[in-house]
Amino acid sequence: MASNSCKSKILSNVLSCLNYKTGKFIIAESKRVGTLYRVIQLSIIGYLVGYVFLSKKSYQAKEESIQSAVITKLKGVAVTNTAESGRMVWEPVDYVIPPQGDAVFFIVTNFIETPNQKLGNCAESPDVPDGHCKGDKDCAKGESVKTGHGFRTGRCLRDNGKSSGTCEIYSWCPIESCHQPQEAENFTIFIKNFIRFPKFSFSKANVQDTADKYHLKKCHYDELLEPYCPIFRLGDIVYRTGHSFQDMVLRGGSIGILIKWKCDLDRDHSECKPRYNFTRIDINASRESTGFNFRHARYYKNESGEVYRTQFKVYGIRINIMVHGKAGKFCIIPTVINIGSGLACIGGGTWLCDWILLYLMKKREFYKDWKFENVKKYEDTKQIPEERQLTDQSPEV
Amino acid sequence: MASNSCKSKILSNVLSCLNYKTGKFIIAESKRVGTLYRVIQLSIIGYLVGYVFLSKKSYQAKEESIQSAVITKLKGVAVTNTAESGRMVWEPVDYVIPPQGDAVFFIVTNFIETPNQKLGNCAESPDVPDGHCKGDKDCAKGESVKTGHGFRTGRCLRDNGKSSGTCEIYSWCPIESCHQPQEAENFTIFIKNFIRFPKFSFSKANVQDTADKYHLKKCHYDELLEPYCPIFRLGDIVYRTGHSFQDMVLRGGSIGILIKWKCDLDRDHSECKPRYNFTRIDINASRESTGFNFRHARYYKNESGEVYRTQFKVYGIRINIMVHGKAGKFCIIPTVINIGSGLACIGGGTWLCDWILLYLMKKREFYKDWKFENVKKYEDTKQIPEERQLTDQSPEV
Amino acid sequence: MASNSCKSKILSNVLSCLNYKTGKFIIAESKRVGTLYRVIQLSIIGYLVGYVFLSKKSYQAKEESIQSAVITKLKGVAVTNTAESGRMVWEPVDYVIPPQGDAVFFIVTNFIETPNQKLGNCAESPDVPDGHCKGDKDCAKGESVKTGHGFRTGRCLRDNGKSSGTCEIYSWCPIESCHQPQEAENFTIFIKNFIRFPKFSFSKANVQDTADKYHLKKCHYDELLEPYCPIFRLGDIVYRTGHSFQDMVLRGGSIGILIKWKCDLDRDHSECKPRYNFTRIDINASRESTGFNFRHARYYKNESGEVYRTQFKVYGIRINIMVHGKAGKFCIIPTVINIGSGLACIGGGTWLCDWILLYLMKKREFYKDWKFENVKKYEDTKQIPEERQLTDQSPEV
Repeated sequence: MASNSCKSKILSNVLSCLNYKTGKFIIAESKRVGTLYRVIQLSIIGYLVGYVFLSKKSYQAKEESIQSAVITKLKGVAVTNTAESGRMVWEPVDYVIPPQGDAVFFIVTNFIETPNQKLGNCAESPDVPDGHCKGDKDCAKGESVKTGHGFRTGRCLRDNGKSSGTCEIYSWCPIESCHQPQEAENFTIFIKNFIRFPKFSFSKANVQDTADKYHLKKCHYDELLEPYCPIFRLGDIVYRTGHSFQDMVLRGGSIGILIKWKCDLDRDHSECKPRYNFTRIDINASRESTGFNFRHARYYKNESGEVYRTQFKVYGIRINIMVHGKAGKFCIIPTVINIGSGLACIGGGTWLCDWILLYLMKKREFYKDWKFENVKKYEDTKQIPEERQLTDQSPEV
Repeated sequence: MASNSCKSKILSNVLSCLNYKTGKFIIAESKRVGTLYRVIQLSIIGYLVGYVFLSKKSYQAKEESIQSAVITKLKGVAVTNTAESGRMVWEPVDYVIPPQGDAVFFIVTNFIETPNQKLGNCAESPDVPDGHCKGDKDCAKGESVKTGHGFRTGRCLRDNGKSSGTCEIYSWCPIESCHQPQEAENFTIFIKNFIRFPKFSFSKANVQDTADKYHLKKCHYDELLEPYCPIFRLGDIVYRTGHSFQDMVLRGGSIGILIKWKCDLDRDHSECKPRYNFTRIDINASRESTGFNFRHARYYKNESGEVYRTQFKVYGIRINIMVHGKAGKFCIIPTVINIGSGLACIGGGTWLCDWILLYLMKKREFYKDWKFENVKKYEDTKQIPEERQLTDQSPEV
Repeated sequence: MASNSCKSKILSNVLSCLNYKTGKFIIAESKRVGTLYRVIQLSIIGYLVGYVFLSKKSYQAKEESIQSAVITKLKGVAVTNTAESGRMVWEPVDYVIPPQGDAVFFIVTNFIETPNQKLGNCAESPDVPDGHCKGDKDCAKGESVKTGHGFRTGRCLRDNGKSSGTCEIYSWCPIESCHQPQEAENFTIFIKNFIRFPKFSFSKANVQDTADKYHLKKCHYDELLEPYCPIFRLGDIVYRTGHSFQDMVLRGGSIGILIKWKCDLDRDHSECKPRYNFTRIDINASRESTGFNFRHARYYKNESGEVYRTQFKVYGIRINIMVHGKAGKFCIIPTVINIGSGLACIGGGTWLCDWILLYLMKKREFYKDWKFENVKKYEDTKQIPEERQLTDQSPEV
């Protein structure tokens, strides 16, 4: 019999576990608080559905660290006519530095040539403040000229009559001189970009597999018609940055080409297209550092094995290709997180309304008594609520 | 006395603040809804523990923006035999471009040599469509040849008898000619990679501090035996991409080496190992742009100071080392977020079940009346529930 | 009349929708559970406000994938005196490789010059283990020397009397020899860095627009005084890595310059300043691979058109500029997520306390009966609670 009661008890407990317990509510017929609550409820639901999910697509897992490889290839020929080296033809091999098609490269558009430099003594360039002198005392022997070209020999060279001149230095002589512009507007840049989103192991290139040899030879980029023909005229690129080509050709400049991949991988992969964006990235720095140039040299030896070099100070356009990618794909975790926290905030709304109801309304005391049932008195009076005998949970049964 | 009542009131308020208020529930013995609720509850808990925490490790803060520095060094010698330059030995200094050990570099495996080019007039190469001509009128003087080598001189050069030929151009002459392959399978590439996760200020290299000089001279990479010996045979690399070495040697190609660092920083740091992954990244682009080559030149001067150059059109393998890292470490915020939103979703489950209980079940009206207590009538009838006199909160006490 | 009742029904339903339903609570005067609950509640709120929002700023959307472009420019002159090439002046064009101002570049501080190499036969360097030999049999003809300079000719060259020597090889001869250090401490590096946070389309450079030409010519970086003058002495850079300049000059080394942009875009943009951080990134690798060097060559031709070259094995400092950025800006979604999940966790606290109250406290049965109202009995006894007649929801009305 004891065992029976025991069994029944266990059974009842197991069953009671499948009873549905739901909170008991009181209906406070306060239209103001009720309305407030509905407003909160609706606005949060609206925010969730409209903003979080439809507009921000927060049901997606996001990937922003992209793997990218860029290959570039330039085409175009130009010609220059200089006193030093006469008529010269410029092919990519001559004007692209480095030549191997990297993501960051430099196009020579203007240069200062200093041919046949040899190590020896000559006058420092007047452009170098530290090189100026009034007499030999200003040119302490062996000292290097700050931001200059070499080491002082101790002599100050002045054109006769002039009161000041520049120090003689031991350096590659002669020091570099004049320069000539060179036409480059029609050079074309072919940018091949291969990307990969590791998280979704999705990869794509900005050139289509279908593209035929002939097509890529003659097409030019157009966002609508030719999104997969990444061939750009240098002139267009500069134009799109909103700066003058002539100015850039002369003083040089640095252009950033941003390739943006914004991919919704829940859609068709063909909709994951690259966007190209052109900005000049040296202009918002100081005047001084606006423009771009550097020096490089070619080294020769004469019959007697003496080294001499031709130095070029090249001005030009430095292209810096930056790839930025962002991909999203449905994922349960962020979805649950957003829904969950949304619901929780509705709960927070209840708190607010309760607080108003119980502390601000006229009939707050009345509501309080109804909302809160104090059980203490029953303990004191040892009185037992009539439900007591009937409820299942009581072990006495 | 007033103050007494006042004190007592304050006291009672303070105390009442420490009373535990808990929601009053009704037990609806509807096994169906109850079961549904339990199912929802358990599935969400299962999802939280099993998927979110165990499988996805969402208790971790993630870091995906990695700082990485790559240094490469090649070793190996090869020999070629060409008409122009006779027997030549190729050392890294000759076949690695650029030589300074960057993350992106190029290995010459095949080249077209055009020695002793001088500026002058010669025939455009027949490979250039725009260079073809039937008569001098096709070669307007001074015009540049599109994707060609120079500027038209105005003459059309035809082998006698032939109806068509190519325009004479002013350019570096002669235009480039034949090429020879060159064996490179056994070149070894040493990749040194240093990474850093800024968020966790954790840094590591893919070469172990313990590695001894001798070891690194002779070891080869093996995922299990030698995970910290990043020395690869070029042949193996190509093999792992699943492409033919011979084909790549001839037409050139571009290979991406992905170094993946997937680190669980809650575990021992030694478990944070690099993984190497090899993909060919020029193949999924069009036929035309498959393969990789570029031109570079060496400049010379003859006795009379005239510049001439030897141009190389080099085919070869462009290696692009991309580093991708992902680290995770326990963090309280994502943990709370996931748990919290999980709980909230259980709350959402309650809503669903309530809704079913109150709007779909047969006895819905009955449940409604029990769940919701309408307090209005008491106002109307001004009747006051008997709890009224006894509850603490009432100021009258 | 039916329509009337129908209308009234609809109306009552609509109105009842604006009633505020709030949960009915019982007050269990158990100070222990109550206190526990308050503690949980306060600690979570504290965590939310103090840690999540104030300290971690989790109300912000974060952007960690930065777009960055780096331009570098070196200045400074040094001199060397070598047997091979006599007194030489080193300008940036000579010691910076590559010269075009990239983010990764190399500064020659020490070199092994091997002038006038020609292809021919000579002895392999004794440094190459595989090149050693005791007799001609050790030098199989045509075989390449492992990690060596060329191909064995089949002869073993020994100084007379010596029992062992090195194989004769066909290679660029002579094989490279001695080296000389070169002073470089005062070279200055100008680093221009342009960054962009795509998510917030916020961009900035580490050089101020206001900076005047003259200023940038003479200033040096100082975190407090000159945060926008990114000009560094090479000596200082090495010093900041905590390594010896002399050692690095001799064996070479690789230094990572981390530029950190940590921007709170809710604040004034001027507070988004770059931080520079210098680490040596080759030291934590093995001894062997500590240090940095590579070879490059200059090619010449003699009168008879024979190619010969001067090879330089250059030791030096490889600078690797890494940019890392992190921006945050207020965003509603993460805010809601954190608040929501925080509230939900307080809800979780309620569960815990309920559980304690109902299963651990002495008077648990008593509390149970009060918390849970069993509605079953009323079904059985078909008895109907007196509220029944009065409540609005009942359709019968």
